[in-house]
Amino acid sequence: MRYVAIQHNGKPVLGLRTADGNIGIIGDESIESLLARGVDLARHGAQQAVGEVVSASEAAYLPPLARPPKIICVGLNYADHAKETKLEQPDYPTLFLRVPTSLAAHQAPLVRPAASDSLDFEGEVAVVLGKGGRFVDRERALELVAGYALFNDGSVREYQFRTTQWTAGKNFDRTGGFGPDLVTADELPPGARGLRIETRLNGQVVQSANTSDMLFDVATLISLISDVMTLEPGDVIVSGTPAGIGWTREPRLLMKAGDVCEVTVEGLGTLRNPVVDEADAG
Amino acid sequence: MRYVAIQHNGKPVLGLRTADGNIGIIGDESIESLLARGVDLARHGAQQAVGEVVSASEAAYLPPLARPPKIICVGLNYADHAKETKLEQPDYPTLFLRVPTSLAAHQAPLVRPAASDSLDFEGEVAVVLGKGGRFVDRERALELVAGYALFNDGSVREYQFRTTQWTAGKNFDRTGGFGPDLVTADELPPGARGLRIETRLNGQVVQSANTSDMLFDVATLISLISDVMTLEPGDVIVSGTPAGIGWTREPRLLMKAGDVCEVTVEGLGTLRNPVVDEADAG
Repeated sequence: MRYVAIQHNGKPVLGLRTADGNIGIIGDESIESLLARGVDLARHGAQQAVGEVVSASEAAYLPPLARPPKIICVGLNYADHAKETKLEQPDYPTLFLRVPTSLAAHQAPLVRPAASDSLDFEGEVAVVLGKGGRFVDRERALELVAGYALFNDGSVREYQFRTTQWTAGKNFDRTGGFGPDLVTADELPPGARGLRIETRLNGQVVQSANTSDMLFDVATLISLISDVMTLEPGDVIVSGTPAGIGWTREPRLLMKAGDVCEVTVEGLGTLRNPVVDEADAG
Repeated sequence: MRYVAIQHNGKPVLGLRTADGNIGIIGDESIESLLARGVDLARHGAQQAVGEVVSASEAAYLPPLARPPKIICVGLNYADHAKETKLEQPDYPTLFLRVPTSLAAHQAPLVRPAASDSLDFEGEVAVVLGKGGRFVDRERALELVAGYALFNDGSVREYQFRTTQWTAGKNFDRTGGFGPDLVTADELPPGARGLRIETRLNGQVVQSANTSDMLFDVATLISLISDVMTLEPGDVIVSGTPAGIGWTREPRLLMKAGDVCEVTVEGLGTLRNPVVDEADAG
């Protein structure tokens, strides 16, 4: 089951991908709300009557969850990427948080801020939790997962490295691409393992890896994070990016107005975002 | 006006401090909700009829805001503290985020996790925003502030320094003391400047400074953060701790079960939290 949140007739609605790739509206309850009340998304979707169908090419996409309770991101979770950053790969996940104001929907612009021209791409898999928990065993961790979505962890590098903490560079408004589909976990291999992940900038492949290359796999991430904090339904764990980021290339490759960045993961589809300068972002 | 959120007859309610320090209930709308709909807290409080009065000593306190949209914390914001950590004091605020599951109310235990005995105190002033904004001029930044509250930015140091990012160590469940009162901005000097701030562990003064010693004052923090992200009503900015933390003392001073930690700021009152081991935390 593939859920898609869109803006329709002036309000946010939820739809399901139809067999031909369009979006059949099922209601106006958000994924956050469904998950908070314990709905099993795979089962729920199968029971819904589909109403109006909106063409995929004309839909006004929203992030699958506009306000997740937490957005927990993982740095340095692919060995080749850790190597290119020249940062030490620790024996524990490098965690940082994003705020909802930093999200951008599918097809919405990633905004290059006026403050810095150092906007970089990071294609990733986002894990959306359907159940919460604390001290979750690794063996049972995947039972918490409602589904997966694409993420582009857009990073303003100059601000990311302005202090030791990456928070500012990871939280500029509308820099984190998210969506379009939340694909329920039953449609993918356990932990979204073994999937090809690719990022393209203006059609050129800039990141290409396999999700099996994660240093801390999805089950391990859930388990370790739950040792620190209570996980809640709707929490999103963004699982890290493989090698190929623009900042460490020679010469550097950064995103600029007019670029189009796409993230594709086998089974999850493609997240596409044009890049605009803040002055033109509206 | 001093707002206090408490649990009463099984549900969260909002009250005002009475002249004798008790809590007069005014309703069940949360501070988050009041701020989200644009209510001016100072004016609103003056218009409310006070119902039942709950004794301060018997109240079951809640954090003033249980689920702020964002909790943005500032590291190394007092020169003496930056020096004791031996971390470089950058020319830009060191920002990190906390999640709501990490909050603990006044009188509620700060929970020392089983995973580490390195729970440390950090007395701070929290700034609660009543209005949002982006690109807020420093000169107008204080217009966004609804009020101030006490914060104890409880930090599990081993996890804070396990990777470069402090997120894990700053987000253990029930480690961030917050409250009891949200004091509206009109009752304090602009930007809460010039206030004595003191942390005591078991009655012994461990941190003692003045809020005027902040390297980035409240107005500057709001302005700089708003250059990165859209600020929203209910956002909380936790403005940093002065020198005296336990981790860098010789010998080290860490919090353990049975301890009581108090943070006092002139005009804001006292935030008091006992410390318990996770096994006994319930």
